[in-house]
Amino acid sequence: MSSTFGTLFRVTTFGESHGKAVGAVVDGCPAKLRLSEADIQAQLGRRRPGQSDLATPRDEGDTVVILSGVESGLTLGTPIGLLVENRDQRPGDYAETADIPRPSHADFTYQMKYGIRASSGGGRASARETIGRVAAGAIAEKILKERCDLSIVAYVSTVGTIEAPRIALEELTREAVDASPTRCPDQATAAKMVDLIEQTRDRKDSVGGVVTCLCRKVPVGLGEPVFDKLEAKLAQAMLSIPASKGFEIGSGFAGARMQGSAHNDPFVRKGSRLGTRSNNSGGVQGGISNGEPIVFRVAFKPPATIGLPQKTATFQGKEVSLAAKGRHDPCVVPRAVPIVESMAALVLVDMMLRQDYRTR
Amino acid sequence: MSSTFGTLFRVTTFGESHGKAVGAVVDGCPAKLRLSEADIQAQLGRRRPGQSDLATPRDEGDTVVILSGVESGLTLGTPIGLLVENRDQRPGDYAETADIPRPSHADFTYQMKYGIRASSGGGRASARETIGRVAAGAIAEKILKERCDLSIVAYVSTVGTIEAPRIALEELTREAVDASPTRCPDQATAAKMVDLIEQTRDRKDSVGGVVTCLCRKVPVGLGEPVFDKLEAKLAQAMLSIPASKGFEIGSGFAGARMQGSAHNDPFVRKGSRLGTRSNNSGGVQGGISNGEPIVFRVAFKPPATIGLPQKTATFQGKEVSLAAKGRHDPCVVPRAVPIVESMAALVLVDMMLRQDYRTR
Amino acid sequence: MSSTFGTLFRVTTFGESHGKAVGAVVDGCPAKLRLSEADIQAQLGRRRPGQSDLATPRDEGDTVVILSGVESGLTLGTPIGLLVENRDQRPGDYAETADIPRPSHADFTYQMKYGIRASSGGGRASARETIGRVAAGAIAEKILKERCDLSIVAYVSTVGTIEAPRIALEELTREAVDASPTRCPDQATAAKMVDLIEQTRDRKDSVGGVVTCLCRKVPVGLGEPVFDKLEAKLAQAMLSIPASKGFEIGSGFAGARMQGSAHNDPFVRKGSRLGTRSNNSGGVQGGISNGEPIVFRVAFKPPATIGLPQKTATFQGKEVSLAAKGRHDPCVVPRAVPIVESMAALVLVDMMLRQDYRTR
Amino acid sequence: MSSTFGTLFRVTTFGESHGKAVGAVVDGCPAKLRLSEADIQAQLGRRRPGQSDLATPRDEGDTVVILSGVESGLTLGTPIGLLVENRDQRPGDYAETADIPRPSHADFTYQMKYGIRASSGGGRASARETIGRVAAGAIAEKILKERCDLSIVAYVSTVGTIEAPRIALEELTREAVDASPTRCPDQATAAKMVDLIEQTRDRKDSVGGVVTCLCRKVPVGLGEPVFDKLEAKLAQAMLSIPASKGFEIGSGFAGARMQGSAHNDPFVRKGSRLGTRSNNSGGVQGGISNGEPIVFRVAFKPPATIGLPQKTATFQGKEVSLAAKGRHDPCVVPRAVPIVESMAALVLVDMMLRQDYRTR
Repeated sequence: MSSTFGTLFRVTTFGESHGKAVGAVVDGCPAKLRLSEADIQAQLGRRRPGQSDLATPRDEGDTVVILSGVESGLTLGTPIGLLVENRDQRPGDYAETADIPRPSHADFTYQMKYGIRASSGGGRASARETIGRVAAGAIAEKILKERCDLSIVAYVSTVGTIEAPRIALEELTREAVDASPTRCPDQATAAKMVDLIEQTRDRKDSVGGVVTCLCRKVPVGLGEPVFDKLEAKLAQAMLSIPASKGFEIGSGFAGARMQGSAHNDPFVRKGSRLGTRSNNSGGVQGGISNGEPIVFRVAFKPPATIGLPQKTATFQGKEVSLAAKGRHDPCVVPRAVPIVESMAALVLVDMMLRQDYRTR
Repeated sequence: MSSTFGTLFRVTTFGESHGKAVGAVVDGCPAKLRLSEADIQAQLGRRRPGQSDLATPRDEGDTVVILSGVESGLTLGTPIGLLVENRDQRPGDYAETADIPRPSHADFTYQMKYGIRASSGGGRASARETIGRVAAGAIAEKILKERCDLSIVAYVSTVGTIEAPRIALEELTREAVDASPTRCPDQATAAKMVDLIEQTRDRKDSVGGVVTCLCRKVPVGLGEPVFDKLEAKLAQAMLSIPASKGFEIGSGFAGARMQGSAHNDPFVRKGSRLGTRSNNSGGVQGGISNGEPIVFRVAFKPPATIGLPQKTATFQGKEVSLAAKGRHDPCVVPRAVPIVESMAALVLVDMMLRQDYRTR
Repeated sequence: MSSTFGTLFRVTTFGESHGKAVGAVVDGCPAKLRLSEADIQAQLGRRRPGQSDLATPRDEGDTVVILSGVESGLTLGTPIGLLVENRDQRPGDYAETADIPRPSHADFTYQMKYGIRASSGGGRASARETIGRVAAGAIAEKILKERCDLSIVAYVSTVGTIEAPRIALEELTREAVDASPTRCPDQATAAKMVDLIEQTRDRKDSVGGVVTCLCRKVPVGLGEPVFDKLEAKLAQAMLSIPASKGFEIGSGFAGARMQGSAHNDPFVRKGSRLGTRSNNSGGVQGGISNGEPIVFRVAFKPPATIGLPQKTATFQGKEVSLAAKGRHDPCVVPRAVPIVESMAALVLVDMMLRQDYRTR
Repeated sequence: MSSTFGTLFRVTTFGESHGKAVGAVVDGCPAKLRLSEADIQAQLGRRRPGQSDLATPRDEGDTVVILSGVESGLTLGTPIGLLVENRDQRPGDYAETADIPRPSHADFTYQMKYGIRASSGGGRASARETIGRVAAGAIAEKILKERCDLSIVAYVSTVGTIEAPRIALEELTREAVDASPTRCPDQATAAKMVDLIEQTRDRKDSVGGVVTCLCRKVPVGLGEPVFDKLEAKLAQAMLSIPASKGFEIGSGFAGARMQGSAHNDPFVRKGSRLGTRSNNSGGVQGGISNGEPIVFRVAFKPPATIGLPQKTATFQGKEVSLAAKGRHDPCVVPRAVPIVESMAALVLVDMMLRQDYRTR
């Protein structure tokens, strides 16, 4: 296990999907930040199940309690303990998987690695594990907002083969994103996505998708070459989210098909600062932010747990057919949006604090 | 700067492209490993410039010296100091860029972050920085080979828009990869890639590409959820390589378009172990290796430094035209192959040592 | 703040003395360890206030709840969340110190470092912070016991100027230590210590002391030179305990007065292993355990908070007299005993896991 | 092995006593620091052998070369590679110890931990390992000096049973310390120490001692509770130095004998800041510097390698007599002075950079 992330702004998460509670400890948060549970609850609300009938109906209020590190509405500079109790546990739903590892789920690998695993619902491999990240990310976002008005907005750009047209990033807001339960801000595309997710759910299947994330007003200079380049830590952060399979920044895989003369981002004066005309770099050059918006995409596979019967094998290698019970998302990407934003915030705030000593 | 990678097998690199030397310190290498300079020199040779006329003609022998940590051909368990002197430095080639940050290069961001930068050739942002990684990676590979016959082979799957057909991974060897200077093992594709790279070079332009990497005989159980999942550390490692813009594992971005019933990898008995019929997971489930081959891809943008004139701006924002001098690769992906392999080896060996205490 | 300790067995603590709760997250605990709250409660009971009239009368049950990481009495290999609620908070007792930093307490330095501080009782600088350490240490002890019957016993060797005679270490047990509320196993000395502490308490003063710690059956080979030598990490661990001012191992400061011919520990066969005749090394040579008992001592200053009036200054520099109210220990060393043991356990278990990959 | 120290200012050392070279990589050094080899050479000169006939006659120039990270006399913010070649290696001197582990030396524990060890002179357990620390420490000192005129001066306060009287710390300088080869600034005491060391050397014995260290103009606020308290990291740093056995800060072990009313340091206005009348705290309260001078002491045991015959055992347990050959210091404390200073500088600079983000 490696449940701590960050160098100066450090988040440690804990909790299984069907245990008593999940949560996080945030260490290194600057002191005197105005902070209350309400600041955190908003993003938790965007992450929680049961928001629409596109998502798992598990019913969790996901109410966060701040256990420490805050007094009279201000952070003390000491570790912030964050706790969310699990209420709607239904261990019984998982009896069947005791002997049958779900295909493409973590049942098999956890059992092999640890010689034991949580009996229900995926334990730490559950999406429920991300609650601690989102709670911590909300704190990170607050710091980024206060220090340089930095904003992070992610949205669903693809569900299955349905792809949103290019979104005008200048005007992208969370409100626009949340207008559809799919979290795709293009309404025509969103409608098609709803159809696809509903059909998929009704067939007891699941479907993948892509989340695009945009970070605006990122100061120049964030990122710590050579191993903690900004894109490297963003990549680690995103590939640590359950079900993610790919990460690309700026031009990404499409950039690999291009020539340098077309791909290079020429410099140009933008007011008092030097900017770039295009942004194939995605806001990062040489591992360091260049002041342009950071744009990256994260690929999510279709959820592994599906109701459709699958021919697979027991731990002992016996052929069986498995049709999963329990409550599962047919498509995780709408709920992945606040998780992607939170992990981006955790990377950026840590890099900002790490850069501070250079800018005194 | 963050120049150290790994938790138990730790690599610290140093050196600018036009300074006295580059190198690395490897701390945590198990004792009593048979090791000599020759073990390291092979991969350094595959990485070094001047291997073919597709690459920069900079002439460096890249001869490694082991400074410490080895006695009578055996590692002592103490830090291994590795040194490669720079010989063919030509600082003069870079006089022009003192005032003009190269578009999409790190000149601008290093200057902004540190308030100073190496006057020549990119400093730490140069491909030359990767020598320490490759030297350390060669040691990591030796351990992986000895402990479980684990092998890592990468190859060029795409240059620009030229894409290799699906390669039969069972038979993939470094010899087959090195048969062409493009490091594409499909000979017909390799020939087209040579043409494209030569044309690109002659036009003083550059071109991107994709490296695919295959790791065989990876034991089950490597990876440390939730933040150091195996794919998360691989993603960090790959995105820390100069010019990389994307990472995907297994089905990757294509997997995001699929339905779960098609994407899931059903379990099946494979001899004495449980394997999977397909490998959309790319050898990793829930952040932990599952015993199947690990397959991932890394996207590289076209090199930023090109001889073609580009309209850009000086640090002060004055419009200028820049046509870079110096010796540059028109396409980095052939030389990126051993770098990708080395970073994969560093991730895998660290995860193997971190898993050890669980398997006593 | 730096609230995480350990490399593979990692403990993160949180909580202020007068907030909602204190606790810890233990990450990296091996899986399949039998563990329940009862295993932890015993050491918490030895640490808690109100055990005798020598200690602060603050009334806390200090009941621990395991929030995660354990199922059906076995650890899962996932992070173990540990929570202890604060019940007997009396913020009002500290109103006076809002303007007057207590001499030799952390009021002043926390305020200067963070620009804010917990309004009551010391916040993170309170002894209450050590609850998370002791809870985590109890888990560490259980692993050490199971793996190699390693035992850790600390005792009070000095209170003020009253010093225990040399204790026969072979027979030292926690039962013998706990026979007196002073935790000095020499009964004649213990009686004198009780007198001194009671007189000190009645005068509203405080007194310091020394805790000696003995670790038996430590395997050969623990410790990671050169910066994480075993004694170096023990020293860090002990000096991180509130009120500690010194650490010495083996001969310690007395050894500095000796000649090598008298100080050296000659080797001698002990059954099937090589041991040493004397143990001036304190069980550690070159930063690595040598198989002999580890013996070290920790000096604790007299508690800073005293009822006697002291002439001091407000934050603004105004001269005042301060006579502290609230509930305070006249002498911390009896309650420091389980804290010292716990920190020793955390160091040893981490070193044991770090050594594992070498002994496969 | 754990050869890296620091969180933001990170030092990684390498090298055995009789290998090709020793050195260090300093990562995280702020950019634009004026730096040349001469800045480093001074402290290396104070550390090197052969300075007087009180020390080992091993003849090493200990000339440092900066391999990277500096251009035109200014640091680049990139890792600084530091190299010192070993010249006067005499492996033959150590043939005898192949089978006989030196009592109280690291021969035995290294062999047991790693299953192998450097054949000569102690390898990483040699004092020669500290060259990298001293080189890195010189850079740290330069930063501390430039940023806040912070100065660090250590001296020998005890050799064997000869103890210097209380030194007036206000006037303590390195020049005064270096006036005697013993590095005791009290001349009468120094003369007695010379006698004792010479007698000890002539008897082929060795003797221990204590180094006291004083850090002036340390800003308020350095130290990261709860595990990286300033005194905790100082303790780790000091106990990581070869042959150290104890650490105490401020009142230390003597403080454990005192009553709180006498021990507490009352606050008093000192010009524009709040200071303390006494300094039993040694400049640190609650793990954080309080602006008063930091004062600590480090105990060093007598060197283990002595020419006097000792009755001991071979690795196989056979009784033998060992009279060590080779060149050894009869007393390490004079040469330990710059090592103590360097480790203090490494701790303080790291803490200063870690504090920076709070003081923006």
